[in-house]
Amino acid sequence: MPDRTGVWLIGARGSVATTAITGLLAMRSGLAGPDGCVTERLEVAPGALPGWDELVVGGHDLVDTPLEKKAEQLTAAGLLPAGLLPAIRDSLRAVEAGLRPVPAGRTQAETAARMAGDLREFRTRHGLSAVVVVNVASTEPPVADAPEHHDFDALVAALDEPGREVLPGSSLAAYAALSAGCPYVDFTPSTGIRLPALTGFARRQGLPYAGSDGKTGETLLRSVLAPMFAARALKVRSWSGTNLLGGGDGATLADPVKAAGKLESKARGLAALLGDDVTAPLHIDHVPDLGEQKTAWDHVSFEGFLGARMTLQFTWTGYDSALAAPLVLDLARLTAAAYRAGETGPLGQLAFFFKDPVGTDEHRFAEQARILTEWASSLGRPA
Amino acid sequence: MPDRTGVWLIGARGSVATTAITGLLAMRSGLAGPDGCVTERLEVAPGALPGWDELVVGGHDLVDTPLEKKAEQLTAAGLLPAGLLPAIRDSLRAVEAGLRPVPAGRTQAETAARMAGDLREFRTRHGLSAVVVVNVASTEPPVADAPEHHDFDALVAALDEPGREVLPGSSLAAYAALSAGCPYVDFTPSTGIRLPALTGFARRQGLPYAGSDGKTGETLLRSVLAPMFAARALKVRSWSGTNLLGGGDGATLADPVKAAGKLESKARGLAALLGDDVTAPLHIDHVPDLGEQKTAWDHVSFEGFLGARMTLQFTWTGYDSALAAPLVLDLARLTAAAYRAGETGPLGQLAFFFKDPVGTDEHRFAEQARILTEWASSLGRPA
Amino acid sequence: MPDRTGVWLIGARGSVATTAITGLLAMRSGLAGPDGCVTERLEVAPGALPGWDELVVGGHDLVDTPLEKKAEQLTAAGLLPAGLLPAIRDSLRAVEAGLRPVPAGRTQAETAARMAGDLREFRTRHGLSAVVVVNVASTEPPVADAPEHHDFDALVAALDEPGREVLPGSSLAAYAALSAGCPYVDFTPSTGIRLPALTGFARRQGLPYAGSDGKTGETLLRSVLAPMFAARALKVRSWSGTNLLGGGDGATLADPVKAAGKLESKARGLAALLGDDVTAPLHIDHVPDLGEQKTAWDHVSFEGFLGARMTLQFTWTGYDSALAAPLVLDLARLTAAAYRAGETGPLGQLAFFFKDPVGTDEHRFAEQARILTEWASSLGRPA
Amino acid sequence: MPDRTGVWLIGARGSVATTAITGLLAMRSGLAGPDGCVTERLEVAPGALPGWDELVVGGHDLVDTPLEKKAEQLTAAGLLPAGLLPAIRDSLRAVEAGLRPVPAGRTQAETAARMAGDLREFRTRHGLSAVVVVNVASTEPPVADAPEHHDFDALVAALDEPGREVLPGSSLAAYAALSAGCPYVDFTPSTGIRLPALTGFARRQGLPYAGSDGKTGETLLRSVLAPMFAARALKVRSWSGTNLLGGGDGATLADPVKAAGKLESKARGLAALLGDDVTAPLHIDHVPDLGEQKTAWDHVSFEGFLGARMTLQFTWTGYDSALAAPLVLDLARLTAAAYRAGETGPLGQLAFFFKDPVGTDEHRFAEQARILTEWASSLGRPA
Repeated sequence: MPDRTGVWLIGARGSVATTAITGLLAMRSGLAGPDGCVTERLEVAPGALPGWDELVVGGHDLVDTPLEKKAEQLTAAGLLPAGLLPAIRDSLRAVEAGLRPVPAGRTQAETAARMAGDLREFRTRHGLSAVVVVNVASTEPPVADAPEHHDFDALVAALDEPGREVLPGSSLAAYAALSAGCPYVDFTPSTGIRLPALTGFARRQGLPYAGSDGKTGETLLRSVLAPMFAARALKVRSWSGTNLLGGGDGATLADPVKAAGKLESKARGLAALLGDDVTAPLHIDHVPDLGEQKTAWDHVSFEGFLGARMTLQFTWTGYDSALAAPLVLDLARLTAAAYRAGETGPLGQLAFFFKDPVGTDEHRFAEQARILTEWASSLGRPA
Repeated sequence: MPDRTGVWLIGARGSVATTAITGLLAMRSGLAGPDGCVTERLEVAPGALPGWDELVVGGHDLVDTPLEKKAEQLTAAGLLPAGLLPAIRDSLRAVEAGLRPVPAGRTQAETAARMAGDLREFRTRHGLSAVVVVNVASTEPPVADAPEHHDFDALVAALDEPGREVLPGSSLAAYAALSAGCPYVDFTPSTGIRLPALTGFARRQGLPYAGSDGKTGETLLRSVLAPMFAARALKVRSWSGTNLLGGGDGATLADPVKAAGKLESKARGLAALLGDDVTAPLHIDHVPDLGEQKTAWDHVSFEGFLGARMTLQFTWTGYDSALAAPLVLDLARLTAAAYRAGETGPLGQLAFFFKDPVGTDEHRFAEQARILTEWASSLGRPA
Repeated sequence: MPDRTGVWLIGARGSVATTAITGLLAMRSGLAGPDGCVTERLEVAPGALPGWDELVVGGHDLVDTPLEKKAEQLTAAGLLPAGLLPAIRDSLRAVEAGLRPVPAGRTQAETAARMAGDLREFRTRHGLSAVVVVNVASTEPPVADAPEHHDFDALVAALDEPGREVLPGSSLAAYAALSAGCPYVDFTPSTGIRLPALTGFARRQGLPYAGSDGKTGETLLRSVLAPMFAARALKVRSWSGTNLLGGGDGATLADPVKAAGKLESKARGLAALLGDDVTAPLHIDHVPDLGEQKTAWDHVSFEGFLGARMTLQFTWTGYDSALAAPLVLDLARLTAAAYRAGETGPLGQLAFFFKDPVGTDEHRFAEQARILTEWASSLGRPA
Repeated sequence: MPDRTGVWLIGARGSVATTAITGLLAMRSGLAGPDGCVTERLEVAPGALPGWDELVVGGHDLVDTPLEKKAEQLTAAGLLPAGLLPAIRDSLRAVEAGLRPVPAGRTQAETAARMAGDLREFRTRHGLSAVVVVNVASTEPPVADAPEHHDFDALVAALDEPGREVLPGSSLAAYAALSAGCPYVDFTPSTGIRLPALTGFARRQGLPYAGSDGKTGETLLRSVLAPMFAARALKVRSWSGTNLLGGGDGATLADPVKAAGKLESKARGLAALLGDDVTAPLHIDHVPDLGEQKTAWDHVSFEGFLGARMTLQFTWTGYDSALAAPLVLDLARLTAAAYRAGETGPLGQLAFFFKDPVGTDEHRFAEQARILTEWASSLGRPA
């Protein structure tokens, strides 16, 4: 009997999760190829990564729109291919049956305990060797610092106070994941595991984690193009960006408070690549009629030999969820493999996937790709 | 007394050469920094590369417009900074004095002998340890194959036939350079040294060479962006490009026959990076009013997860000569260093600089940068 | 009983025709609004234009792919909305029943006679007060001049010679239309009615005609933007354009011979608007993966006060057939109304719709719109 | 002796004013043509407009950088042609001599009286038949409503209160202009004359006025393109814009409070053209390295036949002052002509020049051009 791995999605009914689930089922049925899945291109030892057939999907969500309904909406929006849904309806319903509402306890401790219980139940029911928890829920606003974020015992005590919300949702999910012995991946810019009390907990639990904020559009291009300017000794003076987002994240990010985290995450990368003296205005606009599409325009002004002034502009138009979903599946496979290989703490080797990578300062895309390739080729090999 | 190195430019009165010469003089006078010069960013052993003060410039050209006049035109075109020229006029006149008309012999052998004589005289007069010949002349049309191109002895015999032009100008310049014991760099897509009879001659003379076709705009971006699509498993379906060029090369490339070589050189890179099944229409238009500027627009259509169709467009607007000139100086320094280090044959390590690199099939920019960095750091070190 | 008008499409199974037919049926069934239909915005006297319910569609085509099959392809390509086809299948089959293959006579005269016969039969069968013939077939190459094109009697004689093809297909269709007493509209850049022998015939028959080459993308924008530069006394120096076309016309226009007519038609407009001294390179590329979409990029370089150099770039991405189809319906209605009103000869008032309008030199979009609006408001009014 | 007309610039040492003055002097000396000057293209009766030689320039400014120095900066920035300044230095100094600091009275009434005094002195000294006051000073933040803005007598009383600032600078300048019997033009989005108390005053003084906010870039294009979508019955769903500005106005508009007026002015036009249900996010960013250049990117998403989704993007790159300066001269000439012709109140006929025109709701560029042309042709003709 094959070794099976769980993928537990926080925000399992959203666009990214629904696309990932639908795509996984389509690949299994031979109805779609693995375009966009990076793990299919990596050279790994046989068996080092769980196969598509060996992944079992579950998840939490606050909303209760059925996956099938969401998939219909994404089909109408041109994101999922017409004709796919009828062919996988049965298997989609099977996944649906495994989803759970986010529990609501009297205290955050109680909520977390029930979430961890859902994870353990999922693992047991399917006989899974590991369950990787991936956060693909809506972006949260940045969270105010609190002493309990730095001290695990104080945190545990605060979680027990009725009515107190010492942790944002993403961090509570990370806490629950770690409590249940599950590796955690943050695909959003939300706080998640990035609090000292939680990263310390991960190490004590001997668990790996990865994040933050999947790199799928403008920042992907920035991490590819900025190193070019540096390598050619061209001096970037300004790098201006505008992002137009339709559904889903667009509505969330129209709220400037919630967008703050995203904008910080994007800005950090550019500063890391080019230094702090680059003028870099950046906007995210909600443009509902774009539907599932997003469009980014960047304008780069730079100086060359003898001060010659030149510019680069680009426009990137894509389906955010189609870019994100295969990476979610990739991250589940790679994090499961890291867990099997006994790795703990932040997985800097997965920086390739993130706008704001934990465990490393490397933002250059090509270098991130090289590190990923090398690390992946070592997986499943005797040390 | 310092070790001095010669840089001999074929096409020494053109825009690229004039910008390189002006910039070199400006850097020496402290009037300009090395923006755009890659060698200033490489970590090399002290003394491994000739310093800016140790370069002596000479060259051949068919036209006789004085450098000073050309520099005035480039200043009016916004390429050279206003106010620079008066400050370097004297040193520019000194370089002028060292330029030579392209000799015209009764046979190509005689022409080549006189060119080689000019190179030897230049080396002796200035006491140079090496003279690197760099071709920055106008692009030639592709040349028809001939048996003599494959057999050095037959070539030598053919060069002696009065009235026969067995070699195009760029190849005759390469032959002269090799005859005089000089390394050769081809910054253009012209044939240059790329004939079996000449590359064999280079090896027998124990000389290194580099080329072809400096990578300064659209192709630079392609070699940066195409690997991103590959690394992310995104399937490029078409990559369409249009180049608008003003002065200089624009007029030459308006002639479809002459443009053929350039278009081939550009296309080869894309096919090497993405495979042959990508639709890739490509145009070069001469738009005189753009002056020294060039603008490239590329439209990339690609497919992601579940066949989602997405696009990337970019517009690159730059001064071609401002992009090329510092690379010419970089190549002179690096090729001189390779010569000193005893390297011979094609310098694949310099692929970073070229659209159509000799000595390697590596077209991925980041990998080219890594190879260059590593090789440069080994220069001047004991083997 | 209402007055019914026929619309006879040359190329009735192509993308434009299929979209027009499908859309007409959808509007009639209340499944789609008239977005893109200009006649819905014009103020006309009640009854001056035939209503959507009063149009009856027929047509000729060389191919025999059923409309239903073509509509399925256009749905898969994202051009027609998913879900529309089942709702109009029956009425689509009814239209199908009225389409005819292009007849093949022993001489062109015989072919034309049979075409005219089809038109007369269509008019009689449906009791139509008029039949407007609209050419939406593939673009033909420019045609060589012949003496018969200038002399109607000579033309008639030449049409009778077996094996001789004195007229291209589009012109033969125009001849047949005129013979049958039908107004003729050319939506393509093909020769069509634009031969002196045929325009003279139209006048003698007392018939109106309109054309040429529907203005749906790049040229539409040019006819809007060029007058702005003129009105602001900004001096356009170059206007460079690239068109990427997927299916249908893209394949036809990939053939430089066939593209010649299109390129000429496009260039004429720009010269008329801005004069002859504007550098204006223009390309049409066939990029099959774009499917039914087309993308145009234009780069305009202009000069302002004190010679300041500035640029405008635009990228237009659209479904060619979705832009063309409503105009085809508009032209059928307006030309029918002109016919009813007794107008004959070239309908310069319809220049608004065309890249290369007959009967006028007016290329300025806003002025064309004003003329159309004024003319339409006079329709159906007592003179 | 010719009839001479004064042009009094509020903000006479800024980029726009300096470019206008320099250009006027260059045209007079035959060193530059009238590119960008609309009045040179209008058909007007001889003598209806003051000639370039008949304009005398004066002005107020808060700063005291000499015009010559400012012109040097604009030359270095590439806005003014190299070589021009030395040729007009003497006449530039003559203009310099006529500029005045903004006076500072104990009350706003006193300040205004001194400003009006400067205007009267200027008129008398040069024997001018009229002085047109044009505001080209920095954009002010929107101003809070006050009862005195609606009641001239109350306003006059409030102006007399020491320490009270009942009017923003632009409105005080308008009040002073009207007091001195001068027509007033607002080239900025500042409040200026647009207060009921002041427009009433203008009518009582029998003076014409024009404004507001010169239309030179993004809004110009919007007023050209939006009517195209309307005329073609294409339904615009969103129109997103980003403006990158370097010097001058960029710094002012980086302050969100000051930018508010500009953004409102821009948004009003789009709503007037396309209705209120178009999503229209709009940003102005200050990007200092762009110097005197501005770049706007707009992304328009629209729907056509059968709901087909399409897009238009454009990028406009220009020198703001080179676009504005000739319009300032045009407005001075046209407003002087209107004054001579006895026109009073808002000059809606000049909407062609403004983002947010007074005296009309017409925002369609072509229609504005038609109205201007017609009105201009009537100038100087017997009624």
